Amino acid sequence: MSIIRSLNHQDEFVGFYLLKELEVKQTNGTPAKDYFDIVLCDSSGQISAKYWDVTTTDKETFFPMGLVKIQGIAHTYREKLQVKITKIRKANDDDGITLTDFIRSAPVLPVDLVYIIKQVLENITDVEIKKIVTYCVSKVEEKLMHYPAAKTHHHAYFAGLAYHMVRMLEIGNFICKQRPFLNADLLKAGIILHDIAKPEEMIAQMGIVSDYSVHGKLIGHIAMASSWITEAAIRCDIDLQSERVLALQHLVLSHHNLGEWGSPVQPQTAEAVALHHIDALDAKLQMVEDAIDVLPDTENWTPLIRGLENKPVYRMKW
Amino acid sequence: MSIIRSLNHQDEFVGFYLLKELEVKQTNGTPAKDYFDIVLCDSSGQISAKYWDVTTTDKETFFPMGLVKIQGIAHTYREKLQVKITKIRKANDDDGITLTDFIRSAPVLPVDLVYIIKQVLENITDVEIKKIVTYCVSKVEEKLMHYPAAKTHHHAYFAGLAYHMVRMLEIGNFICKQRPFLNADLLKAGIILHDIAKPEEMIAQMGIVSDYSVHGKLIGHIAMASSWITEAAIRCDIDLQSERVLALQHLVLSHHNLGEWGSPVQPQTAEAVALHHIDALDAKLQMVEDAIDVLPDTENWTPLIRGLENKPVYRMKW
Amino acid sequence: MSIIRSLNHQDEFVGFYLLKELEVKQTNGTPAKDYFDIVLCDSSGQISAKYWDVTTTDKETFFPMGLVKIQGIAHTYREKLQVKITKIRKANDDDGITLTDFIRSAPVLPVDLVYIIKQVLENITDVEIKKIVTYCVSKVEEKLMHYPAAKTHHHAYFAGLAYHMVRMLEIGNFICKQRPFLNADLLKAGIILHDIAKPEEMIAQMGIVSDYSVHGKLIGHIAMASSWITEAAIRCDIDLQSERVLALQHLVLSHHNLGEWGSPVQPQTAEAVALHHIDALDAKLQMVEDAIDVLPDTENWTPLIRGLENKPVYRMKW
Amino acid sequence: MSIIRSLNHQDEFVGFYLLKELEVKQTNGTPAKDYFDIVLCDSSGQISAKYWDVTTTDKETFFPMGLVKIQGIAHTYREKLQVKITKIRKANDDDGITLTDFIRSAPVLPVDLVYIIKQVLENITDVEIKKIVTYCVSKVEEKLMHYPAAKTHHHAYFAGLAYHMVRMLEIGNFICKQRPFLNADLLKAGIILHDIAKPEEMIAQMGIVSDYSVHGKLIGHIAMASSWITEAAIRCDIDLQSERVLALQHLVLSHHNLGEWGSPVQPQTAEAVALHHIDALDAKLQMVEDAIDVLPDTENWTPLIRGLENKPVYRMKW
Amino acid sequence: MSIIRSLNHQDEFVGFYLLKELEVKQTNGTPAKDYFDIVLCDSSGQISAKYWDVTTTDKETFFPMGLVKIQGIAHTYREKLQVKITKIRKANDDDGITLTDFIRSAPVLPVDLVYIIKQVLENITDVEIKKIVTYCVSKVEEKLMHYPAAKTHHHAYFAGLAYHMVRMLEIGNFICKQRPFLNADLLKAGIILHDIAKPEEMIAQMGIVSDYSVHGKLIGHIAMASSWITEAAIRCDIDLQSERVLALQHLVLSHHNLGEWGSPVQPQTAEAVALHHIDALDAKLQMVEDAIDVLPDTENWTPLIRGLENKPVYRMKW
Amino acid sequence: MSIIRSLNHQDEFVGFYLLKELEVKQTNGTPAKDYFDIVLCDSSGQISAKYWDVTTTDKETFFPMGLVKIQGIAHTYREKLQVKITKIRKANDDDGITLTDFIRSAPVLPVDLVYIIKQVLENITDVEIKKIVTYCVSKVEEKLMHYPAAKTHHHAYFAGLAYHMVRMLEIGNFICKQRPFLNADLLKAGIILHDIAKPEEMIAQMGIVSDYSVHGKLIGHIAMASSWITEAAIRCDIDLQSERVLALQHLVLSHHNLGEWGSPVQPQTAEAVALHHIDALDAKLQMVEDAIDVLPDTENWTPLIRGLENKPVYRMKW
Repeated sequence: MSIIRSLNHQDEFVGFYLLKELEVKQTNGTPAKDYFDIVLCDSSGQISAKYWDVTTTDKETFFPMGLVKIQGIAHTYREKLQVKITKIRKANDDDGITLTDFIRSAPVLPVDLVYIIKQVLENITDVEIKKIVTYCVSKVEEKLMHYPAAKTHHHAYFAGLAYHMVRMLEIGNFICKQRPFLNADLLKAGIILHDIAKPEEMIAQMGIVSDYSVHGKLIGHIAMASSWITEAAIRCDIDLQSERVLALQHLVLSHHNLGEWGSPVQPQTAEAVALHHIDALDAKLQMVEDAIDVLPDTENWTPLIRGLENKPVYRMKW
Repeated sequence: MSIIRSLNHQDEFVGFYLLKELEVKQTNGTPAKDYFDIVLCDSSGQISAKYWDVTTTDKETFFPMGLVKIQGIAHTYREKLQVKITKIRKANDDDGITLTDFIRSAPVLPVDLVYIIKQVLENITDVEIKKIVTYCVSKVEEKLMHYPAAKTHHHAYFAGLAYHMVRMLEIGNFICKQRPFLNADLLKAGIILHDIAKPEEMIAQMGIVSDYSVHGKLIGHIAMASSWITEAAIRCDIDLQSERVLALQHLVLSHHNLGEWGSPVQPQTAEAVALHHIDALDAKLQMVEDAIDVLPDTENWTPLIRGLENKPVYRMKW
Repeated sequence: MSIIRSLNHQDEFVGFYLLKELEVKQTNGTPAKDYFDIVLCDSSGQISAKYWDVTTTDKETFFPMGLVKIQGIAHTYREKLQVKITKIRKANDDDGITLTDFIRSAPVLPVDLVYIIKQVLENITDVEIKKIVTYCVSKVEEKLMHYPAAKTHHHAYFAGLAYHMVRMLEIGNFICKQRPFLNADLLKAGIILHDIAKPEEMIAQMGIVSDYSVHGKLIGHIAMASSWITEAAIRCDIDLQSERVLALQHLVLSHHNLGEWGSPVQPQTAEAVALHHIDALDAKLQMVEDAIDVLPDTENWTPLIRGLENKPVYRMKW
Repeated sequence: MSIIRSLNHQDEFVGFYLLKELEVKQTNGTPAKDYFDIVLCDSSGQISAKYWDVTTTDKETFFPMGLVKIQGIAHTYREKLQVKITKIRKANDDDGITLTDFIRSAPVLPVDLVYIIKQVLENITDVEIKKIVTYCVSKVEEKLMHYPAAKTHHHAYFAGLAYHMVRMLEIGNFICKQRPFLNADLLKAGIILHDIAKPEEMIAQMGIVSDYSVHGKLIGHIAMASSWITEAAIRCDIDLQSERVLALQHLVLSHHNLGEWGSPVQPQTAEAVALHHIDALDAKLQMVEDAIDVLPDTENWTPLIRGLENKPVYRMKW
Repeated sequence: MSIIRSLNHQDEFVGFYLLKELEVKQTNGTPAKDYFDIVLCDSSGQISAKYWDVTTTDKETFFPMGLVKIQGIAHTYREKLQVKITKIRKANDDDGITLTDFIRSAPVLPVDLVYIIKQVLENITDVEIKKIVTYCVSKVEEKLMHYPAAKTHHHAYFAGLAYHMVRMLEIGNFICKQRPFLNADLLKAGIILHDIAKPEEMIAQMGIVSDYSVHGKLIGHIAMASSWITEAAIRCDIDLQSERVLALQHLVLSHHNLGEWGSPVQPQTAEAVALHHIDALDAKLQMVEDAIDVLPDTENWTPLIRGLENKPVYRMKW
Repeated sequence: MSIIRSLNHQDEFVGFYLLKELEVKQTNGTPAKDYFDIVLCDSSGQISAKYWDVTTTDKETFFPMGLVKIQGIAHTYREKLQVKITKIRKANDDDGITLTDFIRSAPVLPVDLVYIIKQVLENITDVEIKKIVTYCVSKVEEKLMHYPAAKTHHHAYFAGLAYHMVRMLEIGNFICKQRPFLNADLLKAGIILHDIAKPEEMIAQMGIVSDYSVHGKLIGHIAMASSWITEAAIRCDIDLQSERVLALQHLVLSHHNLGEWGSPVQPQTAEAVALHHIDALDAKLQMVEDAIDVLPDTENWTPLIRGLENKPVYRMKW
């Protein structure tokens, strides 16, 4: 079985892959014929593929997100490597493979990520803060096991959201030690809550976001999370006028820093300033790391990265 | 008693006024002497005044927002009319005056404004919407009787907020008739709710905002009102996933139209688009009307109006 | 005859339609063959269509904006419904159809719209204002019967410009009653004049703008209308220094509100502020109404609407 | 008589000066005394001055823009040189001085500047263009003899506007020789017309702008000049549809380049592009030259220059 | 031989051309066939062309930037003229043609441009400035003979950079005469140095930029040229603290005027202000001249010009 | 001796202080009298003070940045605490105090900060990088002992620059461990070099910046540091084309992230992205910490902080 990243022009190969995208298209000839325009992927990357002369049975057999066994040949077309599929069949139970082997994931197991988050949560000493964060996490706990942190921007893969939280918690922990004037409970809570409503903002399967939800478009994860804190306080019998509620809502509402980036208020507590900059540091570095990770050895420039002012990143040669 | 707007250079006069602002200052001479730097106002406008040779007793007698009887003389100083106070005493019960006679107010009685708002509320046909709006209004009902709509921008006077709501409801009513595809319940609810949290965002007395509250600075009236809708839904046993809750929160969250103006999401329902533009139309026209209202007959240009791109407005001569 | 909005996958149908767009293209095969890439429309909407195996005669027979009778079949291609035309012939006099049956129009008859505008004009009491507006309207009266208000933004259909004027006049009338300090003559005149030069700025047929004119690109409708007022004053023997001329030119020049939106000066009279916001209210709501009007029943989100910060609009499900 | 630029700390002097500004102020002592807060100027610069113990007669004798003979002493106050006036009297006919000796002027005589402009005008070969430019120049010919080009930005002195035109005509002449594809008639006409309405936009005396006119604020010199071209064409019996009228209006309307700088359209002819950049080159360099001109020899940095992104300019030491 | 600009629909022709671009593509038919998607050019312009039924030999014979003899037919496809190639062969020595006959060039011979630049350099009187400029020019002297000034913006052709310098030197010379307060040595040096590092910022062949270099992307020509001045000063034993070094680095660093256009500091010397505006004037006018130069006689509007706010330019009809 | 932060209304006190600012001003009375307008400071904060009835000897005795012994009384004036000085004398050697006791400093000794930086430098493994950084540090080593990091923005105190470097090195060290794909040598070098030219950009004494230098204004610390790297490479015989030189210059040039913030190129290596965000995180948190540090216990809001979008920061009450 061939790893996608290792394919070269003229390689013939056989292996199992995920049909990440599949569209039935028609040739321009007369009569027009159906063909499959496919994106194949495995955990190492993805590649465009074509399957010509599609039959009616094929169209009823193969669908996006299905696992298949393929025989194909790689060739360069318009300066890009592409696969011409010569044989294709659905994977079956005997093949002993599972979907999660084929998608991009956080480098730590989801179960471990969620465990770490819960440990941090457990160690929050302020009772009100702990209750509110616990309530909010419980609303999305199942989705935390697999949701990405964004559609394309950063951590856009299986369990990317939990991975983003955990890495930020590590940085937050360091910063709190370096600067003891920060309230560690608040900063940890802010890190866990800041993107907590993302699983309700986006519709995702297997770490891939297909669209934003209606609530995502009309309310957004920032205002949603703020409302969840209100809901949590009511359900946990915490006074809505408590400064803890205020501090947590401020953390969530201000974490995008500017109005044009979606925050209705700007950071105005020490922890809110810290949260925004830790978020930026982790997200931007992850974008770079992810882009370099899938960069072929023969290239030194990544594609344009939207979250970095739409600039590419250069990998030094030494 | 002389109306402030009618004063001219060299007028000597006696009358009752409100000490809107009063600061004890010191002359630069040696020895420095105390004097009062005062802003006098009545319902027709306001004017700067000085009271020289202040005694210790005076300093313990006169404070901002107190009513006084004054004997003074108006004179022009650096191109502006100013008052030199020659005599001053506190008003007493026998004088038969009340504070509200001396402050700028909406042209409709507060009690009538609140009555109109409640009538509209009563006529909302959708049960969930009605319950939520009723709950939110009840949170600030007392303050609706006197709160201004903003610190300086527009409707910055006694009961200005309720007046703004009522005028928008009039326009909204007309627009719903002109465009029946709009959901009138939603639009009315949006008009009543869009600024409903302003009384908690600002600290005001007698229609004058002295500052923003801590909640106002850290959360803002937009996110506050959105959380109130969550609270209302929980208290009234309405499903938080109801499209009514979604629609109302969207109206509130999007009514400033752009991120840089404080809205975390942009209007994406017909009623949200209508709400933003009715709000703008009413607020901008009121700024103009208020500025022209206090413009002396001898002038044609108002002062710069911040909400109008910091431009003045010209009153035609015919 | 099938209405375009009601077509479904696999529907076979016969009917009369307008060839809104028609291009001769060539298949990629060898030898390349000509085919027609067509946009069909009727008053309910429009749809993409193909007619394969085009003959030389066909190419001399069918042109854009022609009426035709078609036999076709609807099918879904790349997630969009499309028509494959199986037979096509030109419509003839016996078919008893006219072009205007097939294009999108304002919901009020053009003749009625122009009548209403003239009624309003008739009721302007100020003689100078009335003369100037009358002169300007007479320059484009014929085009007012059919011109759209914009290329794509809003009211982009037959008589859309006149419809926009009439609706704004309705709102203006209401606002003048609500706020008597406004000069009703000026506001009405501003509403009629603000877009009066659009028919010279754009080249349109049947309510569809094909391009901007040279004058449109180099001068723009705003400066054009301002010059027309100068021209009108000269032709009607009105003093160019009259404050009426000034007020009308200011209304026209400032109605886009900001320099970056094309206004060389910002609104600085009460009526100019009113005009801009009434224009915005009517144009934005019409964009929404038009987008929802053609939204298939099965969908809840309109396409992106450029004039609404490029956001789509959501139609509530209840 | 001492030149203002040459004054030093402790200099006693006698001489004639212009009272550029004069305000009656009052000391803070008790009793308050009147004094004159004055700005003295001569052709070399200006300086702040005080005249203490003002009498009633003084207040009826001395006014802004009057010429006076002064005895005074220069002294440094808060790091700035200032004059204490010890004697003052009005200049009289026997003194043999005139106002224009005391104000900042273009370095070429106004009569010569206007002569040059008229020579250029005379040499325009296109008949329509020549007629229109001639008509527009005749509207402001008298004011061209003394008007500045701006309130503070650049060429803010006696005949500054005409000087700006003449210098631009020199550059324009060179550029037309360097790039023969440019239409020299159009470019010259554009240079003469682009700021031609400034004398009606601003209220100025002796090269000093006191304010913008009502027309200046509500219409602006750009739209005004465009209307003057319409007026000129009508008065000279030139077809309003002539491409000459179009080209000239485009030059005027687009010369500020961007909407946010006041141009409703952007330059879209070769000559319009040239006009904008020649205007910028001349205006910016003149700001620099003027600022360096009045820079004391002991300093190397000018004050902040608003038209240069609010930066100061450094004069090299060699 | 047919000039590309003179081709019309249905013209059959034979001639020599440059294969500016050549890509092997495949038809969508089954089986897919290879064809060449080509951009042909000569000194008059360029045109899209197709060569169908490509053989294996063809694919080994024809490459981008090769000279060929072609037999073809022009035809209109999707409103654009296109060439169908019927015969093609490589040009050989006997054909007596050279590459430079087929590419767009500055209208002055490169050798003459470089000679002029060196003459100017020779006439710089300040010794330090002359040494530094000489050193920097020597770093790129060979490339000055052919490099364009930009990728697409302006002077994007053979020797465009040297042409840009020479034209700016002409304007600079005129401006220094008009305004003697400018330091002519500095301005000339600034003109020669401002874009001197462009040949290291971009990778170009035959006047066509294929990409930016790694140094170009990570450092940019502005900071590069600034470092070259440091290098020059060290190599020529000039004190790095010399005001000449300072003045030259400031000229280079500030010539894009604003931070968002790439300048880390804004112009703050007279010569820096002059440099920026002379650069803008020459670059913008050249964009216009180049666009009009290749505009077919039948059209009056050029394509959109990115450097002119993405506007097209109109060529007057008279 | 009284600590400034502990003063209250009506406190009489005696103690040693630094005259941070001292200006001779004049009362407005007649005759005007001289007085000192003073800013007193000690390590706990600063306060405004007046010394009335100044003698000629006083004016020759007291100057800014001098140490004095004072007897005074604190009183509230216009809502601010102020000191009226009743006695003042210069401090002398017998008083046993030194200037550094009275100014705000980094919380770590300068000598220790520089030691840490040198340790890090010592541990850079790449030879070229180490040489270049060592060369650049040696240029400002003496100033590193006391320079602030900025004029007002952040770390604006004695040795603030070195403190900023050291704290960033701590964060950088952590991030390199968390993300091993980062080149630790490069990131450390970037942290040390990014602001290395600030001591030449600003003129500072005792940790207080009085102005920017001429080089600071015309070149800026970013381009200066880039040139220093060129200089270092030449002096250390390192090839200017080395990728190390490229990488270091890119780090320095891009660290302000955006053109409008002064960076001519945007971060396009992993380490450059890390550098910018670590810089932001440390600088912003330090602004907050410094502001809260000097916040009186009775207040919860700091003053507006320019570097935080001009927002104040709120200190929670619990």
